[in-house]
Amino acid sequence: MKPEDVKATVTLDEVRRAVAVAAGREAGSLLLKNATLLNVLTQDIDDTHVLLAGRLIAGVGPDYADAAADEVVDLGGKHLAPGLIDGHVHIESSLVTPGAYAAGVVPRGVTAVVCDPHEIGNVAGVPGIEWLLERSERLPLDVWVTVPSCVPSTPMETAGATLGLAEIAGVLAHRRVVGVAEIMSFPAVIAGDEENLAKALLAEQYGKTPEGHAPGVSGRDLQAYLASGIGSDHESTTLAEGQEKLRAGAFLMIREGSVTRNLDALLPLVKPETSDRIGFVTDDRLPGDVCDEGGVDFLVRRAIASGVAPALAVRCGSWSTARHYRLVRRGAVAPGYFADLAVVDDVANYHVSRVYKEGRLVAADGKLCVDIPEPQVDDTPVRNTVHLPELSAERFRLAAPAAPTVRCIRPVPYQVLTEEVRVTPTVVGGEVVADPTRDLAKLVCVERHGHSGDVGVGLVTGFGLQRGALASTVGHDHHNLLAVGVDDEDIRVACERLEHLEGGFVAVDRGEVLAELPLPFAGLLTDRPLKEVSDTLERLDAAARELGVTLPAPYMALSFLGLAVIPELRLTDQGLVDVRPGRLVSFAAEDVSAS
Amino acid sequence: MKPEDVKATVTLDEVRRAVAVAAGREAGSLLLKNATLLNVLTQDIDDTHVLLAGRLIAGVGPDYADAAADEVVDLGGKHLAPGLIDGHVHIESSLVTPGAYAAGVVPRGVTAVVCDPHEIGNVAGVPGIEWLLERSERLPLDVWVTVPSCVPSTPMETAGATLGLAEIAGVLAHRRVVGVAEIMSFPAVIAGDEENLAKALLAEQYGKTPEGHAPGVSGRDLQAYLASGIGSDHESTTLAEGQEKLRAGAFLMIREGSVTRNLDALLPLVKPETSDRIGFVTDDRLPGDVCDEGGVDFLVRRAIASGVAPALAVRCGSWSTARHYRLVRRGAVAPGYFADLAVVDDVANYHVSRVYKEGRLVAADGKLCVDIPEPQVDDTPVRNTVHLPELSAERFRLAAPAAPTVRCIRPVPYQVLTEEVRVTPTVVGGEVVADPTRDLAKLVCVERHGHSGDVGVGLVTGFGLQRGALASTVGHDHHNLLAVGVDDEDIRVACERLEHLEGGFVAVDRGEVLAELPLPFAGLLTDRPLKEVSDTLERLDAAARELGVTLPAPYMALSFLGLAVIPELRLTDQGLVDVRPGRLVSFAAEDVSAS
Repeated sequence: MKPEDVKATVTLDEVRRAVAVAAGREAGSLLLKNATLLNVLTQDIDDTHVLLAGRLIAGVGPDYADAAADEVVDLGGKHLAPGLIDGHVHIESSLVTPGAYAAGVVPRGVTAVVCDPHEIGNVAGVPGIEWLLERSERLPLDVWVTVPSCVPSTPMETAGATLGLAEIAGVLAHRRVVGVAEIMSFPAVIAGDEENLAKALLAEQYGKTPEGHAPGVSGRDLQAYLASGIGSDHESTTLAEGQEKLRAGAFLMIREGSVTRNLDALLPLVKPETSDRIGFVTDDRLPGDVCDEGGVDFLVRRAIASGVAPALAVRCGSWSTARHYRLVRRGAVAPGYFADLAVVDDVANYHVSRVYKEGRLVAADGKLCVDIPEPQVDDTPVRNTVHLPELSAERFRLAAPAAPTVRCIRPVPYQVLTEEVRVTPTVVGGEVVADPTRDLAKLVCVERHGHSGDVGVGLVTGFGLQRGALASTVGHDHHNLLAVGVDDEDIRVACERLEHLEGGFVAVDRGEVLAELPLPFAGLLTDRPLKEVSDTLERLDAAARELGVTLPAPYMALSFLGLAVIPELRLTDQGLVDVRPGRLVSFAAEDVSAS
Repeated sequence: MKPEDVKATVTLDEVRRAVAVAAGREAGSLLLKNATLLNVLTQDIDDTHVLLAGRLIAGVGPDYADAAADEVVDLGGKHLAPGLIDGHVHIESSLVTPGAYAAGVVPRGVTAVVCDPHEIGNVAGVPGIEWLLERSERLPLDVWVTVPSCVPSTPMETAGATLGLAEIAGVLAHRRVVGVAEIMSFPAVIAGDEENLAKALLAEQYGKTPEGHAPGVSGRDLQAYLASGIGSDHESTTLAEGQEKLRAGAFLMIREGSVTRNLDALLPLVKPETSDRIGFVTDDRLPGDVCDEGGVDFLVRRAIASGVAPALAVRCGSWSTARHYRLVRRGAVAPGYFADLAVVDDVANYHVSRVYKEGRLVAADGKLCVDIPEPQVDDTPVRNTVHLPELSAERFRLAAPAAPTVRCIRPVPYQVLTEEVRVTPTVVGGEVVADPTRDLAKLVCVERHGHSGDVGVGLVTGFGLQRGALASTVGHDHHNLLAVGVDDEDIRVACERLEHLEGGFVAVDRGEVLAELPLPFAGLLTDRPLKEVSDTLERLDAAARELGVTLPAPYMALSFLGLAVIPELRLTDQGLVDVRPGRLVSFAAEDVSAS
């Protein structure tokens, strides 16, 4: 290690001041009197006082009742908790930049997240991740980053970038990068694929953590997956699965996202004796859910409501995650720790009235009371990322195959899963066409990173679309442009509108845009406030219903139709993917060998 | 971080093999069947099987009952535990090299120690610490190192070396260095002394831990001490002190040394909910105690005997300490972890029958069954470290002062403390002389590092010495030569004998050596086996009793008479030190201002 690699978390002067304040030689910056402290270190509740020295907590204890301080706030017995830490979140799922995300969760007592910029990584590679790191400097929210490990997710799609070992290593060196993100290719890990194992080992070699993702994996497979050194999992859905993973040494992240909700099933595992091995995470939360339910605070609130002792629930939402990621001076209220604090008015409902970030009051009464700093960041790496090929009706043409039936995708409502159905297509003039009377719409996936310009075309059922088209540049995991429509011309208009907007969501009817949400950063994010985004999404949903859509959350459903790693049938720019065998398949149902 | 700084713990091939073995594609190296696993992760006890792949644990679980393996050992339901980790030990206190220490503790189920080479550091500085690091390579015991933080302990003594910030930083970069050792100068830390604070911060900047030592410190002082970022303490002696430190965020190390024994007082703190914040440590153990009671296994045994659940006791002796020091793949029995394992025949008595270190059987039935590798190390930095000035009777002369009384040291039996007593000296021909009839012996401290050649001379009472002299080159913390005698010529013979031996302990009567223990490495250590050292110490004790000594453990008592940081009166090469005000004082009792 060279001296220039030494990482500063605090300065010597900050430490000197904290010691002087604790010892009573200097006045503190803030005294929080009469706090009922949720002590996550001992799982006790202490009636005490907390004295700050700038960014740090100087001292905690009865001796500070009348300590000298620039400012004194009498909490009158209100609870005080460490700021919460979300152990695994894709900020992109909330469709906003880190600054807008911070504005949404910080007033709720969340002061840190460990994010996995998997979506930005797929679109914009290392420069995109670096952009996110820069964009999340100087926020009232610590944004720790894990490097996406699976970009692209499969070779059957064209992503915007590839993250190999060299790219991952480059990002791992960053001060705020704490690990390699969820290694989702669990079959490859279990099969001993060297590149996946090398990615896990790389994190370890940098003194950081390799994170896991092993849904339903158990027995020998689970042991093999964890033998790689991967240290966590956030995919457990049942008590037995969670228990097995805990016993096998995984740091168990209990997830409550917008779609995947595992808290109720796993909450019985949260016990004093295992609480250092359990953290709370949100993974993916839609803008409206962040607004209405919150971020990781939602899990703490629900856990307390379910009877978990508050200090224990908060422990899983702060301390345990901080320790898992080896975050120093974070996750507890103790001398020398960063003063990331939440004043909890009503602990039964985990209602937070004030939030301090590194000693500064940043939110009160549910609202941020500091400005999110204007980003001084070059946005080039994530702007202008929608580059479509020339689109004519010809590109969306589906020649009628000789076979009598074709493969058709059906999304499962409220889930990420899809099903493959076989249908006899409606054929007009030798072409398979959308047929609203049979709920058959066209689905296209247009490569939008400016690489191949390929267009995949297929059929989808279940939307109920009667007119027009919907389109999205959010298209997991490659984030190509996905559009569903019953009119090829409306599909074309929708695609070109999104190119004009540099990405987003759009609903089109007879050549007219009914509603749209521009997502100009990587075609994934906006810096508009979460509430505004949530309201716009409601207008987009209304427009979709106007077009006949009956499928709930149609844009989210659309965005998952290209996800070629979760069963059953998907469409990428390269064509239809049957995820079960993991290969490209033909549109014609009879052909079982596509390659 | 540069690629060359990336630290390898395991190789990719080892990981690949572990995954393949866990998944059943390759045969394991060893199957431990029918184990009753003390699962420190969940504090459960699991009936299970453990399959190894070389140095690593590949898989744990019922699926491995009949797994293919090169070797199968049926444990028949015996308990299996992770190898224990001693969180803070001065190996030097056992008077042996790391190899000989390993031979003593490994058969008891101890597979790692975090040592603080404070004594070697005082004698031989950075080269001495590097020697210890080299000497502890390839042992069946992991020797992690914390860099001594207080060398020298005070400016009122002449140590062999000085460890400043630059020296500490240099050592911190080593792969096996995990922190900065106990920052004992707690008054300086609390007072905001920048050098001490900078030492703590340096550990943090290297991603390592700054360790604490704060006996009896509480209230604001404790908060100030911990506000520095120091993260642990092993000096608690009462339940209230331990509880306060836990709540304040210190990792609480419960110590049971040879002299300082705190386990009984602190054991009520060991509870499931705090067990991740508590580790077991031995600090200082004499060779005989290691032979008879063991190392950190003694604490686990005692805790279980006192009613602590075995999995919980073992947790504090392994997992919690591994986490505190951020040791990866250590401290638990789980896939991907190093196979450091103890087979426990009789869990009520924590009787260990077999020990595996990184997958290899290294001890059985209380005996090492592998050779400690012959050190391929240049011993120069720690050899030939006793360089005495020319010693004549003149150097030991104590001129009778004008004052009627003088300061005299009295050791407190079985403790590190000393008392100052005032005596009217026996004067012969203008010189203060030893007077066995009044239990007044001469005490000398001879600078032995070849720096100043200074000799401090004083009086000591409490030994009961009637004839001859005892001498030691173990002399905390500076490790100058300390001798107690009633005959100046015997003192001189004892000193010169130790110079000839390159250090050790010696008892001399009328010019003849009665017993001796050579400690040729830094004048502190031998590579003879612990049992042999223990037997030799018994002969030295017998020789001391022959000379009239009534004080128990007289060589240990002698070695602490120079410890100028613990009250009350001490003798260094620079003279008498009154530790309470922290300054050099005169022999004559009236003079209250020495400088």
